[in-house]
Amino acid sequence: MKLFHYLFSLLTLLFLFQAKEGVSISPLQLITHPLDPLTKQEITLVQATVLKKYPTPPNHVFFHYVGLDDPDKTHVLKWASSGTKTPPQRSAFVVAIVNNSQIHELIINIKSSNVVSYKIHLDPGFPTLTLEEQSLAISLPLKYGPDVESINKRGLNLSEVVCSCFTVGWYGEAKSTRALRLECFSKNGTANIYVRPISGINILADLDTMKIVEYHDNVVEPVPKAENTEYRASHLKPPFSPRLHSFASHQPEGPGFTIKGHSISWANWKFHIGYDVRAGVIISTASIYDPEVHKSRQVLYRGYISELFVPYQDPGEEWYYKTFFDAGEFGFGQSMVSLEPLHDCPPQAQFLDVYFAASDGSPQHLENAICVFEQYGGISWRHTESGIPNEQIREVRSDVSLIVRSVVTVGNYDNVIDWEFKPSGSIKPSISLSGILEIKAVDITHTDQIKDDQHGTLVSEHSIGVYHDHYYIYHLDFDIDGVDNSFVKTNFKTVQVTDYNSSKRKSYWTTSSEVAKTESDAKTKLGFSPSEIVIVNPNKKTSTGNEVGYRLVPNAASHPLLREDDYPQRRGAFTNYNVWVTPYNKTEKWAGGLFVDQSHGDDTLAVWTKQNRGIENKDIVLWYVVGIHHVPCQEDFPIMPLLSTGFELRPTNFFERNPVLKTLSPDIVKWPGCGKP
Amino acid sequence: MKLFHYLFSLLTLLFLFQAKEGVSISPLQLITHPLDPLTKQEITLVQATVLKKYPTPPNHVFFHYVGLDDPDKTHVLKWASSGTKTPPQRSAFVVAIVNNSQIHELIINIKSSNVVSYKIHLDPGFPTLTLEEQSLAISLPLKYGPDVESINKRGLNLSEVVCSCFTVGWYGEAKSTRALRLECFSKNGTANIYVRPISGINILADLDTMKIVEYHDNVVEPVPKAENTEYRASHLKPPFSPRLHSFASHQPEGPGFTIKGHSISWANWKFHIGYDVRAGVIISTASIYDPEVHKSRQVLYRGYISELFVPYQDPGEEWYYKTFFDAGEFGFGQSMVSLEPLHDCPPQAQFLDVYFAASDGSPQHLENAICVFEQYGGISWRHTESGIPNEQIREVRSDVSLIVRSVVTVGNYDNVIDWEFKPSGSIKPSISLSGILEIKAVDITHTDQIKDDQHGTLVSEHSIGVYHDHYYIYHLDFDIDGVDNSFVKTNFKTVQVTDYNSSKRKSYWTTSSEVAKTESDAKTKLGFSPSEIVIVNPNKKTSTGNEVGYRLVPNAASHPLLREDDYPQRRGAFTNYNVWVTPYNKTEKWAGGLFVDQSHGDDTLAVWTKQNRGIENKDIVLWYVVGIHHVPCQEDFPIMPLLSTGFELRPTNFFERNPVLKTLSPDIVKWPGCGKP
Repeated sequence: MKLFHYLFSLLTLLFLFQAKEGVSISPLQLITHPLDPLTKQEITLVQATVLKKYPTPPNHVFFHYVGLDDPDKTHVLKWASSGTKTPPQRSAFVVAIVNNSQIHELIINIKSSNVVSYKIHLDPGFPTLTLEEQSLAISLPLKYGPDVESINKRGLNLSEVVCSCFTVGWYGEAKSTRALRLECFSKNGTANIYVRPISGINILADLDTMKIVEYHDNVVEPVPKAENTEYRASHLKPPFSPRLHSFASHQPEGPGFTIKGHSISWANWKFHIGYDVRAGVIISTASIYDPEVHKSRQVLYRGYISELFVPYQDPGEEWYYKTFFDAGEFGFGQSMVSLEPLHDCPPQAQFLDVYFAASDGSPQHLENAICVFEQYGGISWRHTESGIPNEQIREVRSDVSLIVRSVVTVGNYDNVIDWEFKPSGSIKPSISLSGILEIKAVDITHTDQIKDDQHGTLVSEHSIGVYHDHYYIYHLDFDIDGVDNSFVKTNFKTVQVTDYNSSKRKSYWTTSSEVAKTESDAKTKLGFSPSEIVIVNPNKKTSTGNEVGYRLVPNAASHPLLREDDYPQRRGAFTNYNVWVTPYNKTEKWAGGLFVDQSHGDDTLAVWTKQNRGIENKDIVLWYVVGIHHVPCQEDFPIMPLLSTGFELRPTNFFERNPVLKTLSPDIVKWPGCGKP
Repeated sequence: MKLFHYLFSLLTLLFLFQAKEGVSISPLQLITHPLDPLTKQEITLVQATVLKKYPTPPNHVFFHYVGLDDPDKTHVLKWASSGTKTPPQRSAFVVAIVNNSQIHELIINIKSSNVVSYKIHLDPGFPTLTLEEQSLAISLPLKYGPDVESINKRGLNLSEVVCSCFTVGWYGEAKSTRALRLECFSKNGTANIYVRPISGINILADLDTMKIVEYHDNVVEPVPKAENTEYRASHLKPPFSPRLHSFASHQPEGPGFTIKGHSISWANWKFHIGYDVRAGVIISTASIYDPEVHKSRQVLYRGYISELFVPYQDPGEEWYYKTFFDAGEFGFGQSMVSLEPLHDCPPQAQFLDVYFAASDGSPQHLENAICVFEQYGGISWRHTESGIPNEQIREVRSDVSLIVRSVVTVGNYDNVIDWEFKPSGSIKPSISLSGILEIKAVDITHTDQIKDDQHGTLVSEHSIGVYHDHYYIYHLDFDIDGVDNSFVKTNFKTVQVTDYNSSKRKSYWTTSSEVAKTESDAKTKLGFSPSEIVIVNPNKKTSTGNEVGYRLVPNAASHPLLREDDYPQRRGAFTNYNVWVTPYNKTEKWAGGLFVDQSHGDDTLAVWTKQNRGIENKDIVLWYVVGIHHVPCQEDFPIMPLLSTGFELRPTNFFERNPVLKTLSPDIVKWPGCGKP
């Protein structure tokens, strides 16, 4: 990794020397895979290209999205199979707001520095917020007279107030302007601002004018106390809890994986770790080596979290609008945070940095944004055989997993996003929630005083942890042994035995498989009837004739509880089913729509699939919703211990047999001291 | 651990010196906890006491169960709170078959070596099989003329045939005798006998006479080939799969837990690891230290897997009866196997041995039956705060878990049973399946040849992996801050907004809690309507007034697919619901009944709960069913990579706040060489 960084720096220098003028920097040789995220140089070049089209002054240009425009899948696959080094031509996709009103979508050819196409977005919905405008917006209340008055009125010190911003949602308005709700907090005595809301104040800021346009100071609820809310060890007083014993580890042969650019090779896996300012980590072109046929076989063209919908469940004036789309509104990649070596990731981890474009289009660097590490301690397979006389057999294979981790912190919540790969062919994506609850201040200190529905749990005095959901939707573009795949639901059904001469049983179960022909066939609410969900390649069979496939092993399913015609649910309609399948379409990346902020729900997965397109033996995408209904509890306060959920993508008749049958255990040893372990 | 063994040996020696005569060995001083499993000496003493009652000759006595008779819970709790060292008086419970027909249940006072009570079991159902009778039974076919002929007829060599035994189930017979079905396999060219069945032969052995009483040689199906079925590395030919890199670890301060007898102290947890020949590992008297009140608080009085029901789904003559109850018929503890250090458990693991009684009542030793280890690599909680101007905050706490692991191998399947404890108060039990499929031999080599339902997957030529289920039922005797607890279902419900002046939302969800008053109220099929399942102590509230509790966070729920009146389902009726709650009753330990072999289903959890007893604010037991419908796939062949599932018991308003807020990260370091890490 160090070497890689060194090379990277060298190459960067090289390009700087080769550069003739700003726009003509040619960073293409840094790219080793067509799905590599935009480099620092490419972002700079895209910035320059856009600003050449809209010179500033006289224009004002804000970059709301800058990312790799997906290369044609056929080109990527051709590139991958050809073994040529030069990836196909790269383009960037840009969403920029020009002169505070026009939303421009541009495609930029990176090599030629040309704007290939552009259009103006006129439909409802606004682009992802920039960090800079959020930063400007949250400073508005503290300079706004009426708010200063409200703060003084509450006996608070202005220097101890910080504000935060919240997207406003959409509630049937025919026309909207870009706006944010603002809410302020006391940081007096704590860094844990979210648990000390200064409530009773409604503030709306217009983002085009960057001014407060609505302001109401209503009820005054007490600000919950700072006591017991601090979480920084440096600010906590002893006694601390019993110490956990320390752990030292070592990989004498070094890590078992290699990272070349963004491409990973590990054990039998090869895949690419991409990054997008909106999606966060993207796993691409994952293939696994099949020892039977002596070659790597395609599994997953692309996998990422397409959207995260977090609707709060308090209908009151200060809370009803809180129905966040964390990827589309705040940017899952933009909200990624630097990982803390040794604590967020174990010592054997290697880290990747990322670059994204700031509001002015310039590249921003995020260090240690992604970590990759091997995890030990599990069992791959085992058997003890006691049934053969005079023979005792015990065969155990230890397991090693490879984990790709990132953390997305959108305001108060921290989402730990893991992709776990196993030599057995399983991919286990998981999500763990931590961070801080959003607290509603109330004049209640004990549940005895509760008369009406408080829409949450009294997690501490004056503090309601408001009910909410977390719905993550994964975009899983499987290419099982090729692009043309089918979606199969294997249903379980009870068969009644009618001829009691043939069996002493009265019943048994068997399966019947249904191939989904269209998008409607594939829509599935999990949990109500037993089934297995499999993506197969119907053109490829095992030697005994089973269709090769991968199975989705889901976790406990969650279903939406809002009315289907309620505004937030129309926008988050991709949660109406747990599983959806669409034909691959380059433009259908974001399950909640491309422009999600204040969207009307007319560009969601639920709308696209109304076309009821054919999905049999086609290049298809599986969409899977992982949902958590969150009833806060006192343990979530003042900071929440990880709550984890996940699922498994498991090879199912993909291999002729157990693919780790001939994978020996790694040497796993206790290392008592010096020398060779 | 070594020291402990040493002390144990010393004490053993001491007792041998003190012993006056066989029966009077007094091993009580070895016992440090009233729930300690019977010691080697105690088993010897119980054997002697029983044989004194039924001298051999003239009697024949076979011990089918020897275990600790549960001490009164009140006595155990009193002992635990009093701090006295001498545990209350211990008794053993014994099930013995005397003179091949009478099933005796005996309670034996260990101190006085007296039979306190005994009764003869006359109802349907037989005790757990002994290893010895299974061993005798499987040797019968090879000495049975017609079978020798059948084997010869198939061109097989008798020396390469091994047989295995299977419980016969119950299919409405009014009266039964103890019997086993026998099936033979070819071990020619493989140790993987289960995939090479010699089919077409039905053999029934009577266990009282230990003779074959039914024999039919029907159809002759080819024995599936040995090729690609071997799993022992020593018998596999290169090339092997890519090597996984090695890993060395070290705990410079030693492990963070201490084991004293069977009692564990680790971080904020204290609990007891028991063992029972039928249940396997039993977690008892688990309590967690609460830093707010400076004391340990009770959580779980006892948790173990009460039964495992594995019904196969082929109604045919050779398969219909395969509806196994692995705990009641084969003994989950009796089927535990020695763990392989470094491979089944990581290097930092410590091991516990166990003793159980053989068929003749003598103590049998199983080395390394249970391992305990700490696991690193996760995150306990984290937050990155970017919302406070001019301040960057990142606080991350690494997590450490404590895992108690055992492996139960019942014939072909290996069940990896983990109990994971977290400093945050969570207990995460998990089950991972490995081992070998039961294969049905068929004259089919390709799915194209399949005309009728084969009741499974063609996992290899001539080899059907037959459909089946695995239903594990956990007995979870919660004592949340005391014995009197209630079961609360928190239901989620959609509320429609009717007054649009009050909110722009059309809907939201809220919760309503139902306290189960009776056993019927508590029966729950999970997955059909959203709810949270909580055990609370209604007599104990947090300072803000929430009832203290623990929540069951379930995995995807499975429901039975057999007809409710089908014989196997009547016996396995405890799977009719995922969650059940009963008032604590010492005799209700085994969800499928005390005598499960050939039972009629009249002593199951489903029958007990028909009493519809009160369960509100009482000492209650939660029963939770984890089910897997298993459609085999080729990857499961010839040996299955781990398939894992699990659930979480999570403190929910049990603590005033996050209990690991003041738990610092352990030192986790990369140790590149010699010296102090």
